[in-house]
Amino acid sequence: MSQDNLTAVLHGIEDLRLEQRPIPTITDNDVLIRMDCVGICGSDVHYLVKGRIGDFIVTKPMVIGHEASGVVAEVGKNVKHLVKGDRVAIEPGTPCRMCDHCKGGKYNLCPDMVFCATPPYDGNLTRFYKHPADFCYKLPPHVSMEEGALLEPLSVGVHACKRAGVQLGSEVLILGAGPIGLVTLLTAQSMGASNILITDITQSRLDVAKSLGAHHTLLIDPNAKEADLVKRVQEIMGAEPNISIDCCGFESTIRLGIFATRSGGCVVIVGMGPAETKIPLVNALAREVDIRGVFRYCNDYPSALALVASGKVDVKKLVTHHFDIKETSKAFETARHGLGGAIKVMIHCQARDTNNKNKF
Amino acid sequence: MSQDNLTAVLHGIEDLRLEQRPIPTITDNDVLIRMDCVGICGSDVHYLVKGRIGDFIVTKPMVIGHEASGVVAEVGKNVKHLVKGDRVAIEPGTPCRMCDHCKGGKYNLCPDMVFCATPPYDGNLTRFYKHPADFCYKLPPHVSMEEGALLEPLSVGVHACKRAGVQLGSEVLILGAGPIGLVTLLTAQSMGASNILITDITQSRLDVAKSLGAHHTLLIDPNAKEADLVKRVQEIMGAEPNISIDCCGFESTIRLGIFATRSGGCVVIVGMGPAETKIPLVNALAREVDIRGVFRYCNDYPSALALVASGKVDVKKLVTHHFDIKETSKAFETARHGLGGAIKVMIHCQARDTNNKNKF
Amino acid sequence: MSQDNLTAVLHGIEDLRLEQRPIPTITDNDVLIRMDCVGICGSDVHYLVKGRIGDFIVTKPMVIGHEASGVVAEVGKNVKHLVKGDRVAIEPGTPCRMCDHCKGGKYNLCPDMVFCATPPYDGNLTRFYKHPADFCYKLPPHVSMEEGALLEPLSVGVHACKRAGVQLGSEVLILGAGPIGLVTLLTAQSMGASNILITDITQSRLDVAKSLGAHHTLLIDPNAKEADLVKRVQEIMGAEPNISIDCCGFESTIRLGIFATRSGGCVVIVGMGPAETKIPLVNALAREVDIRGVFRYCNDYPSALALVASGKVDVKKLVTHHFDIKETSKAFETARHGLGGAIKVMIHCQARDTNNKNKF
Amino acid sequence: MSQDNLTAVLHGIEDLRLEQRPIPTITDNDVLIRMDCVGICGSDVHYLVKGRIGDFIVTKPMVIGHEASGVVAEVGKNVKHLVKGDRVAIEPGTPCRMCDHCKGGKYNLCPDMVFCATPPYDGNLTRFYKHPADFCYKLPPHVSMEEGALLEPLSVGVHACKRAGVQLGSEVLILGAGPIGLVTLLTAQSMGASNILITDITQSRLDVAKSLGAHHTLLIDPNAKEADLVKRVQEIMGAEPNISIDCCGFESTIRLGIFATRSGGCVVIVGMGPAETKIPLVNALAREVDIRGVFRYCNDYPSALALVASGKVDVKKLVTHHFDIKETSKAFETARHGLGGAIKVMIHCQARDTNNKNKF
Repeated sequence: MSQDNLTAVLHGIEDLRLEQRPIPTITDNDVLIRMDCVGICGSDVHYLVKGRIGDFIVTKPMVIGHEASGVVAEVGKNVKHLVKGDRVAIEPGTPCRMCDHCKGGKYNLCPDMVFCATPPYDGNLTRFYKHPADFCYKLPPHVSMEEGALLEPLSVGVHACKRAGVQLGSEVLILGAGPIGLVTLLTAQSMGASNILITDITQSRLDVAKSLGAHHTLLIDPNAKEADLVKRVQEIMGAEPNISIDCCGFESTIRLGIFATRSGGCVVIVGMGPAETKIPLVNALAREVDIRGVFRYCNDYPSALALVASGKVDVKKLVTHHFDIKETSKAFETARHGLGGAIKVMIHCQARDTNNKNKF
Repeated sequence: MSQDNLTAVLHGIEDLRLEQRPIPTITDNDVLIRMDCVGICGSDVHYLVKGRIGDFIVTKPMVIGHEASGVVAEVGKNVKHLVKGDRVAIEPGTPCRMCDHCKGGKYNLCPDMVFCATPPYDGNLTRFYKHPADFCYKLPPHVSMEEGALLEPLSVGVHACKRAGVQLGSEVLILGAGPIGLVTLLTAQSMGASNILITDITQSRLDVAKSLGAHHTLLIDPNAKEADLVKRVQEIMGAEPNISIDCCGFESTIRLGIFATRSGGCVVIVGMGPAETKIPLVNALAREVDIRGVFRYCNDYPSALALVASGKVDVKKLVTHHFDIKETSKAFETARHGLGGAIKVMIHCQARDTNNKNKF
Repeated sequence: MSQDNLTAVLHGIEDLRLEQRPIPTITDNDVLIRMDCVGICGSDVHYLVKGRIGDFIVTKPMVIGHEASGVVAEVGKNVKHLVKGDRVAIEPGTPCRMCDHCKGGKYNLCPDMVFCATPPYDGNLTRFYKHPADFCYKLPPHVSMEEGALLEPLSVGVHACKRAGVQLGSEVLILGAGPIGLVTLLTAQSMGASNILITDITQSRLDVAKSLGAHHTLLIDPNAKEADLVKRVQEIMGAEPNISIDCCGFESTIRLGIFATRSGGCVVIVGMGPAETKIPLVNALAREVDIRGVFRYCNDYPSALALVASGKVDVKKLVTHHFDIKETSKAFETARHGLGGAIKVMIHCQARDTNNKNKF
Repeated sequence: MSQDNLTAVLHGIEDLRLEQRPIPTITDNDVLIRMDCVGICGSDVHYLVKGRIGDFIVTKPMVIGHEASGVVAEVGKNVKHLVKGDRVAIEPGTPCRMCDHCKGGKYNLCPDMVFCATPPYDGNLTRFYKHPADFCYKLPPHVSMEEGALLEPLSVGVHACKRAGVQLGSEVLILGAGPIGLVTLLTAQSMGASNILITDITQSRLDVAKSLGAHHTLLIDPNAKEADLVKRVQEIMGAEPNISIDCCGFESTIRLGIFATRSGGCVVIVGMGPAETKIPLVNALAREVDIRGVFRYCNDYPSALALVASGKVDVKKLVTHHFDIKETSKAFETARHGLGGAIKVMIHCQARDTNNKNKF
């Protein structure tokens, strides 16, 4: 096996370096993975620029990256469902498996979660990475490595839609058409939503949403009056949505979601905004409109993979840029400033399409 | 208004007559409907041939028909959501609205349900029929009257899939590819099932299922061993289904459903078979495989309409034969004996396509 | 039948009059009720003092009162479950029975709800009152008329606990020990909560809570720091509560509820405070702590009656004062200013204990 | 530490021996437990008498016992919530923690479950036993070791009631008043059931049930007609139960449960009877009465402990006999033949009450 293990390590604010790290040694339940694709997420950029997200602070060098796929290079002796050479998507969090949350089916809330590129834990923008085998999902031949990496943001959309209870005939307002808004759109369609309006302040994003099948789009004028926007949403949809999913985290979008939603419905909020938010709480309470958050995902990778593998959703349109791991710096610049209309930027730890049956 | 109210009345076993009936007078919450399409259901045929289904016995003349659509001819003074001329699908049951089931959101279980063509209540294979307006659903212009009538069986599929908890990534075994099996297939797909196997003993039905998008089909050899069939199902699907939906009601299909289903999953049974059934109950219990029945539908018409109106499902393929109300007798012969490969036989109370924007 | 129908009518702010009204005529699904007990609710006082609650404004004379019980005086011809002389508790809202909310089992959200003493609809602080029979619940002989009237606030507690998903082993923080906080306490115990802390700013209310079985009480110092209160709650309970139920509606109590609740839990808010609220939303979202409102009740009267009839809860301690309907003015003064440590003030339309088997 | 590790080992049918075994060595997540109480379960007796239960066959010597409590003697280095000397109840199954069932919150369905005294895995009727610390629950001082051991059967009752959805106001028919029927009764009461009828063919068991708070009991005459029994159940309860829980597993009790249960309710079956069962399936299906099994328990120990610790249920009455581990043979004879009216027989690995604050 090659001894090259080039790795992208964040040493502090604006200090992202490529350096060699030792190739990890696996234990019995692990696999060693020769990494292929790693997408850049908003949180990765946030750590680079701010050095922290809330209480998670980069205090020592940390490998970046968590939206990833790779090829199994070595298999722990207890592992039964994977063999060397399998192409896998990597669910980037490993919970303790022993607390009430883990045993109760909500491992995403485990307080001892080890999550890639959330301080103090290393991520996987590297050449060789070890991971518990049960959080690696084998990709069918026709699913590309890029799609494997995209299961990570797609799982956020899946989790959001499950938390929202999207089902047959749901009428869904999605606030925000960035990567998370778009994967939420794709998921909501697949779960039977029959009337979806997606909003954004950027027309180009709405165009992508339209091409992905949104029934309606609405370009938000930031100066519009709240009451007018509520009315507009309901006019366009021909009804009050019974579900609103906020993928922005702005006070303004959360407020719009609450006011627009039908009595007895729910507002799910994926985007994380300011710590304190002023919302029309009584309006929600008196109409039994529930407010629910989304933290990562839990048992959602299999659904996300099924969505992609079955051809129900096409996530390829989300990837706008490709870089080699050696160009990590440039990749982050592109993602950070949205250069060239960047939506999702993909970094390749191996030559692109090495492990894809068909070119991506 | 025309005074012609030709009506198909079942007087007893093998005694279905066309006769004139008075045009009904509506009350404040009703609409009067000029009937357009009425599909023939297995239960209609059953009443014709046997005069009863379980404890429901035809003891006096009863108008037949309950899968229906029509055009609003007159509107009660309390009715706000419909106007004269609206094309509507008719949900054929009217519950008491006052019992625990009605108030609790399970009106299909109302013991005082008045249901079309379930003795002693009249159905709607007639020219003029009155119905509570809130159980009439306005059809958009692009949805045909035939599709409106088909919302009735489709709603059974919707109810079955909701009872089964079909969701994103569900792996579903559907037993039986008759009309109910097929609408269940269409619904399960729309709710995100990613792996569907449908079985039947008739290849032509499986061909239709395949053309409607079933991932897998399996022609059942009635002489095959149970254990072999279970194994075969799991081989074809590449996994144990987590949901099985029986649309036959045979002891053999129910048994297959139980044995094949994954621990923690469920078996939903739509078809009604013999009163007493011998099943491998301990197998289900010890693996927490739930067994759930389906009785008609409840709050499912809106979802069914959304499915059709959005183009997500195409129910048109189910209709194989068309007859005028004057040919009711012939229509029943066709449905009864499956003449000409009949799947769904449609009776027209008005000249076909009178009320369709585009020809069906 | 007596022709005396003395009735308490609110004509406007601070203008509550006793006057004669005609005895109502019933229709087929109604019963006429000779009223017995009517409790005074905070909302009754609010209408007297402010003339409005949110968008509900008293613009014409309105009979006050909605926490009520009485004796059936006349029975509509369709009514089967009641006979003249039956003692009944009255669920004070009548929904339309035809909208999606009504059909879906959430009739409390019906936009066309006719609710006693919510403008423009009359309440039932009167001698004779008619009501749909299916919203009248027959009391067993050993349940008093006062208890019948108290089913109304108790149903709010039941609805709150059901919305919160209180179950075996739940650890519940209840914020506020007024009438609603206390009935929530009683209900939570009965649903299996094993660790309940109730807070208030008044020690005497906490003493009542303690006597009703609260595991822990906490007297809140309004000047205490938020973080200290959170810590204190968790120390006293020996754990983070997995459910918090706010029965105050203050920004401060809602905030405390959010911060104190365990990840994956929920905060249910019964009290209605200011239209706009500043809350630590991200704290709730990132820990998937759901926020849910409570609007009245729905299918909860039977449970509330079962609780009282089975002796599981003793609501008698909540009633601190009794007045005759002729003393309505004094009764409202007592309730309004909490005179004599008033918790629940009861008005009698008939001589007290006329219809009770044993003295209350 | 003592080197005595006397252990009850089942070598085959009717061949239960006491022998010395080495004291186990713990790993980092384990605790070593000095065993105190071990109750005898019907399954223990079954293995002794038949050598198998279904596909689980005793093919090599197996330590018996799984309803157990003990005192922590040694603590693995990763264990944080326990220290030496803690008194603990032992949940006897250890799942793989990695499969879909484990991650999804249904670890009781894990196919790789290691469960005490289910072949081929050893139980814990021994002096020293090691167990994963997270499946050991610390007992408060006032909870006795016997009560700790009884959490095992109590957890079955908790799981059954949760599967049944027992809640406030539930009307519950419990079929069978053996140990499982009785713990189900205790649990159902604690979850808010307001009307419970329990049946048996033995009056003495019904007397215990009555003393534990059953609202109604019914002595079943095995020769009674099915229809008469159904009618009798509904007469006694004054209503159809909305939940039936069968704790026998007989075809006759399952049938009675189905016929008696209200439309829309459910029948939960804890007892495991013959592999094939003839049931009135259409009766259940057409009334949407769900049929659900119960396999052990899952996340139920904490609720069971809360029930006992809070004093809500008193399980002490279930223990009728006590033996020292050296008298294991006699203990099994007593349990097997129900000698002396035995309900639950408890074996003590240490002198009785050594570790109880107050005498049991």
